[in-house]
Amino acid sequence: MTDCSYHMTPGQFREEGKKLIDWIADYYEQIEEYPVLSRVKPGEIRKQLPPQAPEKAEPFDKMLQDVDRLIMPGITHWQSPNFFAYFQSNNSGPSVLGDLLSSGLGVQGMLWATSPACTELESHVMDWIVDLMGLPDHFKTTSSGGGVIQDTASSAALAALLSAREKKTDFMCNQTGDTSRLTAYISTQTHSSVEKGVKIMGIGTDRLRKIDVDDTFAMSPQALENQIIGDIQNGYIPFFVCATIGTTSSNAIDPVRLIGEICKKYGIWLHVDSAMAGTAFVCPEYRHYSDGLELADSYAFNPHKWMFTNFDCDCFFVADKSVLIRTLSILPEYLKNEATEKGAVIDYRDWHVQLGRRFRALKLWFVIRHYGTEGLRYHIGEHLRLARLFAEWVNESSAFELLSKPPFNLVCFRHKKGNASNKLLMDTLNQSGKIFLTHTVLDGTFWLRMSIGQTQTREEHVEKAWKLINATSDSIRE
Amino acid sequence: MTDCSYHMTPGQFREEGKKLIDWIADYYEQIEEYPVLSRVKPGEIRKQLPPQAPEKAEPFDKMLQDVDRLIMPGITHWQSPNFFAYFQSNNSGPSVLGDLLSSGLGVQGMLWATSPACTELESHVMDWIVDLMGLPDHFKTTSSGGGVIQDTASSAALAALLSAREKKTDFMCNQTGDTSRLTAYISTQTHSSVEKGVKIMGIGTDRLRKIDVDDTFAMSPQALENQIIGDIQNGYIPFFVCATIGTTSSNAIDPVRLIGEICKKYGIWLHVDSAMAGTAFVCPEYRHYSDGLELADSYAFNPHKWMFTNFDCDCFFVADKSVLIRTLSILPEYLKNEATEKGAVIDYRDWHVQLGRRFRALKLWFVIRHYGTEGLRYHIGEHLRLARLFAEWVNESSAFELLSKPPFNLVCFRHKKGNASNKLLMDTLNQSGKIFLTHTVLDGTFWLRMSIGQTQTREEHVEKAWKLINATSDSIRE
Repeated sequence: MTDCSYHMTPGQFREEGKKLIDWIADYYEQIEEYPVLSRVKPGEIRKQLPPQAPEKAEPFDKMLQDVDRLIMPGITHWQSPNFFAYFQSNNSGPSVLGDLLSSGLGVQGMLWATSPACTELESHVMDWIVDLMGLPDHFKTTSSGGGVIQDTASSAALAALLSAREKKTDFMCNQTGDTSRLTAYISTQTHSSVEKGVKIMGIGTDRLRKIDVDDTFAMSPQALENQIIGDIQNGYIPFFVCATIGTTSSNAIDPVRLIGEICKKYGIWLHVDSAMAGTAFVCPEYRHYSDGLELADSYAFNPHKWMFTNFDCDCFFVADKSVLIRTLSILPEYLKNEATEKGAVIDYRDWHVQLGRRFRALKLWFVIRHYGTEGLRYHIGEHLRLARLFAEWVNESSAFELLSKPPFNLVCFRHKKGNASNKLLMDTLNQSGKIFLTHTVLDGTFWLRMSIGQTQTREEHVEKAWKLINATSDSIRE
Repeated sequence: MTDCSYHMTPGQFREEGKKLIDWIADYYEQIEEYPVLSRVKPGEIRKQLPPQAPEKAEPFDKMLQDVDRLIMPGITHWQSPNFFAYFQSNNSGPSVLGDLLSSGLGVQGMLWATSPACTELESHVMDWIVDLMGLPDHFKTTSSGGGVIQDTASSAALAALLSAREKKTDFMCNQTGDTSRLTAYISTQTHSSVEKGVKIMGIGTDRLRKIDVDDTFAMSPQALENQIIGDIQNGYIPFFVCATIGTTSSNAIDPVRLIGEICKKYGIWLHVDSAMAGTAFVCPEYRHYSDGLELADSYAFNPHKWMFTNFDCDCFFVADKSVLIRTLSILPEYLKNEATEKGAVIDYRDWHVQLGRRFRALKLWFVIRHYGTEGLRYHIGEHLRLARLFAEWVNESSAFELLSKPPFNLVCFRHKKGNASNKLLMDTLNQSGKIFLTHTVLDGTFWLRMSIGQTQTREEHVEKAWKLINATSDSIRE
């Protein structure tokens, strides 16, 4: 039998696996030699690939060579310390290895019974995080609520929207599909994933209210309440508000406590999205920004953005797990088992859209233990310090201006010369391959976004970036 | 700076990574020594974990020791060759390594621009699969349609449902949220994920029609058409049908061509779910089961079930990508870029619910190249042969009976003694730790499900399982 086998043997796995570990370590050592933003043109990668899958088996070495030759030119180096674009998606050794262990074990954690450790470690680490971040105690699985790892903040927002919808309709919408009077509330600055979720769930953008923001780009609670009152008078049923701590465009902070009080008053589900900024709460001195979070029905932040945990890993917490479970639960015969029937366990399949799930808690467990609370505080604190430092440099410069003092690790700034020259500056910087940063537009003004959260970004990288920005700006002006 | 760093250095990564590669190889060599189904009781894992995250950093060795000591007893060994439960979620060396490379590179493929290779390799490999499996040509990205890797068949079904909804409502439902007359159609045997999707999208189970099945548990096209006609007469708008090739309970095969013709006649979206069985189409002699697939608007199968690709990897194809993209597209300012604006590229963020996405094509590329088409055909063919062989043994036995001749790799069988003794037989077998299999109930009858699709399962494992089933059954009777 084994004579005909095409499978990679454990012996080959040892050999090729170790080569790949070295390949990745080499990559990390040499990462600054690559242009951060890939320079390939559309179609350039594909045209080098053979039109058909190979008929015959190919050796592993050939694939690694092709990674170097064909794939690497098309990589934008998210793990480069000179990556300041979007929000980061950083990783770290312990996370990559935790994820490797998850792939190797290859367990499917849809039910407690399909691998009890997968469920129990996840519940436990999520409870750790409640304390680690100073989150409300009722988010613990040992309390009324609980945490679950979702793939992304988009999926978390959708789970929150659905729970809110079902709670508001006495769990009837799952049956009737009647959403016709329901209205949802975000700000003009809320992440697009909530609008996408509202469309997915059958509410429609006509009944999504985009509430005005104040001059810090934070949601106006007064405008929110006025809209809610108006909607109720018109026969609508407000069911969901999303507040953001650290918006994507500019890291604006919605007033969670005031919004939460309005939600309680009108019986509306409050979801708090802190996908990037939430990691800052490992530092106690930043926790005042989460004031009012105990009023939230659900909360999400992404360790896969800034907490050294590779994609995908979004931490989603609910204050009352029974609502979430009742909203998403379904139990066909072929999944029935004793542990589930006795109600003694968590079946995470009922906590999200997907049925299958991998063992994602391993990487988070490895990260938290590798760094310790102390190490996480140190490195996150460093990124926060570097953002303040960069903002000071901008403030002291005559050529550039700051949008506002950065609350977290995102600095929005611009050259004083206007939109077109900022766009040109950004494109020139990105084409240099030396750094990569992106932009946003706020009230018609083009702002550069400098997000400081890559694992290996140190002061020298931020300083070099600032010098490059100045030099490039000078060279453009001339 | 580096003095204070808690990060794992590339040097440490080399050392710990290689230890972990050895750990995984050792695990594969010893996997048959573990009880397949974990024996822990609810709460047993958690109670051994410290109540708080550690303040101080911990060494990697300690974590690996804890994996052995605390985690392994709570693992159900999905990668064991004696795992015959549910549907498999198999993996392989090249897949685990491809996934490791994806974690190591840590790129985020939400847009073409955020890593062109991530998008282009995915499009290319998905096009390879169209030929590899003999799927309709219009599923290629170079044609009207295209393929995308989704996490699970649940997410794929949701994307299909949403596309169908928007197409039927001239893309107005995303705006109005008015789903009030829409009706969806599945069979009584369709996977629960479609019902879950129908609830999520705001249709409601009241407007989900569960069509009767024939005596092979396949959807009755006549019953489907009658229901559609009745619904139209009552003012409803049929918009979606899901046909399954290889249902989860019993691998029943819905008549795709007949259903597809009905869908064309009434302008209804046809989604075909072949999550497990779809892999069989690498073998040309099995492709007659996909007859009529060219009538489908969308199609999904999961390489993470049976094609040696570790979770998560669902291949989702659409015949017209413009419908899917228009349904799920959203473009906030901070994601705008030249490549997207020129329309020259695919931005996979618009092909699913999530925004962020990892580089999953790498593992699929590695698997296809490592095995070659030849190797995939050989191993999938072997599993199919073993299922036929097991079914023959059942047929020849006086004590057991077969539900039907297995079309693919799932054998449904039972002891002739009745439901209670089959349940007892299953529990006894699973408690033995020697094999793990699960059940279903069809028309009130309890059937054992023997799914043969684990990477390392060879004839000796299936033979040993059959002997164990007989011996256990004998011992229970006495």
